[in-house]
Amino acid sequence: MGILDHTIGEEIVLKLVQIHHAEEIFQCVVKNRDHLKRYVPFAETTKEVTDTEQFIRHALEQFSLGKEIHIGIWYQLRFAGMVGANQINTALGFAEIGYWLAQDAQGKGVMTRSVLSLMDYLFVERKLNRIEIRCAVSNQASQAIPKRLCFQLEGKLRQMTQTSQGLEDVYVYGLLKKEWEQAKEHDYWQYFRNENANRWKILERDSRRS
Amino acid sequence: MGILDHTIGEEIVLKLVQIHHAEEIFQCVVKNRDHLKRYVPFAETTKEVTDTEQFIRHALEQFSLGKEIHIGIWYQLRFAGMVGANQINTALGFAEIGYWLAQDAQGKGVMTRSVLSLMDYLFVERKLNRIEIRCAVSNQASQAIPKRLCFQLEGKLRQMTQTSQGLEDVYVYGLLKKEWEQAKEHDYWQYFRNENANRWKILERDSRRS
Amino acid sequence: MGILDHTIGEEIVLKLVQIHHAEEIFQCVVKNRDHLKRYVPFAETTKEVTDTEQFIRHALEQFSLGKEIHIGIWYQLRFAGMVGANQINTALGFAEIGYWLAQDAQGKGVMTRSVLSLMDYLFVERKLNRIEIRCAVSNQASQAIPKRLCFQLEGKLRQMTQTSQGLEDVYVYGLLKKEWEQAKEHDYWQYFRNENANRWKILERDSRRS
Amino acid sequence: MGILDHTIGEEIVLKLVQIHHAEEIFQCVVKNRDHLKRYVPFAETTKEVTDTEQFIRHALEQFSLGKEIHIGIWYQLRFAGMVGANQINTALGFAEIGYWLAQDAQGKGVMTRSVLSLMDYLFVERKLNRIEIRCAVSNQASQAIPKRLCFQLEGKLRQMTQTSQGLEDVYVYGLLKKEWEQAKEHDYWQYFRNENANRWKILERDSRRS
Amino acid sequence: MGILDHTIGEEIVLKLVQIHHAEEIFQCVVKNRDHLKRYVPFAETTKEVTDTEQFIRHALEQFSLGKEIHIGIWYQLRFAGMVGANQINTALGFAEIGYWLAQDAQGKGVMTRSVLSLMDYLFVERKLNRIEIRCAVSNQASQAIPKRLCFQLEGKLRQMTQTSQGLEDVYVYGLLKKEWEQAKEHDYWQYFRNENANRWKILERDSRRS
Amino acid sequence: MGILDHTIGEEIVLKLVQIHHAEEIFQCVVKNRDHLKRYVPFAETTKEVTDTEQFIRHALEQFSLGKEIHIGIWYQLRFAGMVGANQINTALGFAEIGYWLAQDAQGKGVMTRSVLSLMDYLFVERKLNRIEIRCAVSNQASQAIPKRLCFQLEGKLRQMTQTSQGLEDVYVYGLLKKEWEQAKEHDYWQYFRNENANRWKILERDSRRS
Repeated sequence: MGILDHTIGEEIVLKLVQIHHAEEIFQCVVKNRDHLKRYVPFAETTKEVTDTEQFIRHALEQFSLGKEIHIGIWYQLRFAGMVGANQINTALGFAEIGYWLAQDAQGKGVMTRSVLSLMDYLFVERKLNRIEIRCAVSNQASQAIPKRLCFQLEGKLRQMTQTSQGLEDVYVYGLLKKEWEQAKEHDYWQYFRNENANRWKILERDSRRS
Repeated sequence: MGILDHTIGEEIVLKLVQIHHAEEIFQCVVKNRDHLKRYVPFAETTKEVTDTEQFIRHALEQFSLGKEIHIGIWYQLRFAGMVGANQINTALGFAEIGYWLAQDAQGKGVMTRSVLSLMDYLFVERKLNRIEIRCAVSNQASQAIPKRLCFQLEGKLRQMTQTSQGLEDVYVYGLLKKEWEQAKEHDYWQYFRNENANRWKILERDSRRS
Repeated sequence: MGILDHTIGEEIVLKLVQIHHAEEIFQCVVKNRDHLKRYVPFAETTKEVTDTEQFIRHALEQFSLGKEIHIGIWYQLRFAGMVGANQINTALGFAEIGYWLAQDAQGKGVMTRSVLSLMDYLFVERKLNRIEIRCAVSNQASQAIPKRLCFQLEGKLRQMTQTSQGLEDVYVYGLLKKEWEQAKEHDYWQYFRNENANRWKILERDSRRS
Repeated sequence: MGILDHTIGEEIVLKLVQIHHAEEIFQCVVKNRDHLKRYVPFAETTKEVTDTEQFIRHALEQFSLGKEIHIGIWYQLRFAGMVGANQINTALGFAEIGYWLAQDAQGKGVMTRSVLSLMDYLFVERKLNRIEIRCAVSNQASQAIPKRLCFQLEGKLRQMTQTSQGLEDVYVYGLLKKEWEQAKEHDYWQYFRNENANRWKILERDSRRS
Repeated sequence: MGILDHTIGEEIVLKLVQIHHAEEIFQCVVKNRDHLKRYVPFAETTKEVTDTEQFIRHALEQFSLGKEIHIGIWYQLRFAGMVGANQINTALGFAEIGYWLAQDAQGKGVMTRSVLSLMDYLFVERKLNRIEIRCAVSNQASQAIPKRLCFQLEGKLRQMTQTSQGLEDVYVYGLLKKEWEQAKEHDYWQYFRNENANRWKILERDSRRS
Repeated sequence: MGILDHTIGEEIVLKLVQIHHAEEIFQCVVKNRDHLKRYVPFAETTKEVTDTEQFIRHALEQFSLGKEIHIGIWYQLRFAGMVGANQINTALGFAEIGYWLAQDAQGKGVMTRSVLSLMDYLFVERKLNRIEIRCAVSNQASQAIPKRLCFQLEGKLRQMTQTSQGLEDVYVYGLLKKEWEQAKEHDYWQYFRNENANRWKILERDSRRS
């Protein structure tokens, strides 16, 4: 409940990260350190709550310039991850989206819905033309999001990311505004927007059966 | 529609002010200059859209430090005013709320509802204990808000504000968290929260008759 | 003796706080921690001389913008407290004065005289119109200053300050320039200005007798 | 001649851009505005020498943080263009190179040699692992550099750049350190490093004949 | 009259420069432009009051770091010039003093007394060990101050200053703390400290006769 | 080898100091602490590599403003000292040069050649008119450089430097552009520029014999 909250279905609340969220975010990173450390660089470098505060301050500073936006995700009232655009280039009409999710909030459509909400903001409110998502070649969980949301695979950048396993190639996925405008009318996307989280589980279960 | 929007009823949308709102806000100030100039100091000093941009940058900078929050109000899809807290003191658990509204959005409960939403944020999300509203002694439209929302009159500070008519005394109204917790259960407040804007007009009309 | 010193009588010297005063101020805070901690928030948070240096740097930064002024008080050649204006609003012609004094310099008229000197600066040099002093309802020592100097009680702000005893109401006292101009001609104020500190003790003794 | 100069052959001098170069760079941009405006965004926004000064200040600020480097190219004693890395990411061991050249310095191997020198700095001095060059799909002159220097084509990002003709797709070329180490021993690269500029013309003429 | 004023005799008041002095200082520079322009570089570059404001902001910023101090001189209630230390090096115990005076305040001992007061501050309050004054070889009015105050001539730096007549050599004068401690007991210095400004004229007249 | 390297003879390479040089510089300071501590103040205050990083950041910040330049000296592939100008005043056409050298690189002409290269940059690229070198009266090794390079002794500033032995007087040496233009044509200077480092040893040996 609040002036900066965005509610999706009955269980997901998105909020612009703010300094008073630091403790909650920090605890979530600590709890998920093993889960996150392969692909999320700060999972290992976040040692104290002041590290998280410093990140939030930087995030809001960049937000105040219109260059980044970082959204916290609360699932069933607990902080569960983040989705954000860490470079918004209004001159080129371009942004790159990144995200991470706590282990126990996975498999429920939380991130797909959160990314859809962020895309609404970027295409409608910020009038962008192109959104990019980058995933390590071995990170199939991350790749599932752009695949599910109709992004096109546009390239493979060699040795472009540093994982805990060493340098790895990166897939670049892109979605243009005109593609988003078509896709968002489809039943499939409407589903993510309107249905509640419980129904998601059914869908996922069904999709695994088939 | 968007990740930073907060919708009240069918006609009011609140958004954290952002740099890409500058043109819309500036045009509203220009159109309402005569209406605003007596009590809103920047109504006369805002000469170009860059003045508004500078205000927004400052507002978000302070927001990033947790010290201020400035919310734009859209009524029937057009920008119609602002509500904000221009000093949030977490050490003392205190904030002061200010607001201004375009002339053609007045008399519809827009500001009462916007202030209620901001108070939710300040008491719940920011855990404050006391909210203050200050109004020039001659500004009865502004005083109507704290009166309607059960604030107590706590003092009269002499020659504390500069209006276009010269120095004027200021009433200080205060509301404590414990008072807000009681008030928000009342039918009267529930009304503002749940009903749509059309019903407001009926209420106002009825209240004027009685 | 010095270009930034302001001498009152034979025993009081006022100086704009500067970075090389840090050690002296810090030692005074340490020695008076118990005396100050109820009403002076930084008495408990000042743990090292670098905390005091940081305060001084901030104080001078705000002074350089014309927004604050912080004056150190030396009594009988030892640092004994501070008097300052921690918000100077030239647009509104307004400032709020605050002060604290070491225990062994109390009861000698030191603070009354220091506040008078600061008021001269604010009304004459800075051309302000209104000065405000705020005191916790239980802090009678602090209230004695505005009462003695003809301020008017203008309001009681509920739960506005955090003392070591918890939240407390605050009295707001105000003095307008026109009132100051009348008062400063009175014998009573002249006395504070011209006489030396020893005579103060006699006056206080006499005033307690009557 | 100078402590920050890097000489290639007899005719090319590279220098870290500095504030006293502003006038010379500005005049070159003005003279080449038509030549540059399709692909170089600042060719149109650089209106006064202060715009160039602002760019240089920003460039050196980023250089001081180790995040960018911008090198001016002098050909036959006149300023003729720039080569730089506008994001150096030491955590990922990655940099992206960009460049532009005045019309009358084209076709002489100036940029190929300048890029080679910058690559030496990035791979050897800064110990990077991957260098990227991005070119608009229609910009064949720009693509000639990574092709000539053995970069691999890694992707095509759709609508990723804004040219004076509108949005355009972008080719991403990448070169890894291990590839650079092999390539730099080849006769072909040695040629660029050791021979003087006149010999370049012969080589180019011969290569066009074959 | 005020908390930051330092009064010498009946006619001289010294104040730390502050932002609200800008207009007064600017008018004095304008009026004395011809008188100052040969040796005071900003006499020609100060075109608008905002130039003076910018200087004051810089001066107070450096003061807040303990690295500079700039004092305004009021003579017979009108702003008449400045005296300051524009590099205070506490590690080396060293400062350099500079000054300029309006034409109609010259020949009255105003600057000699002002410099003496600043030296008190630098040697006593700031605990420095060495003070330096530099004067263009042709500027005899400026040289009169260090000569009168027992400074030693320590060197002649060739082409070290830019006057409106071109490059000129500079005399360096130095005074050590131990020399200042002896000198300040002499009758001559006592005279500057204690007597009023009218007496100065007599002394000067007498000294010219002999 | 690199875009920011300047090579002298076969054994000396000069580079603008950059943040990735910190470790190498720090180790050299540690190793030469005893050798340096008498005259180089930071030899004792540099305790950790972060101290060196902070110096480099400051150095590059000042360089980006055109106010300082700090050059690292590599001798036989190892970092061996620094030469720099720590105040470049373009308004006056003036700079002051300072330097320090590791013990095992002394006596080989390394510093004389490095200073000559820096002077080329300052007189030619930066168009300065006067260069100054200051040396403690007891520091004959340091004085050898300006003597060898035809600087004039212009003054002796008393107690101007703090050595590990206490306060000490300082010699000021100056060289004007017109003097530099004559000197650089002489055989003696040509020698430093063109010959390799081995020849230097012969010259020095010969000069000691005579």
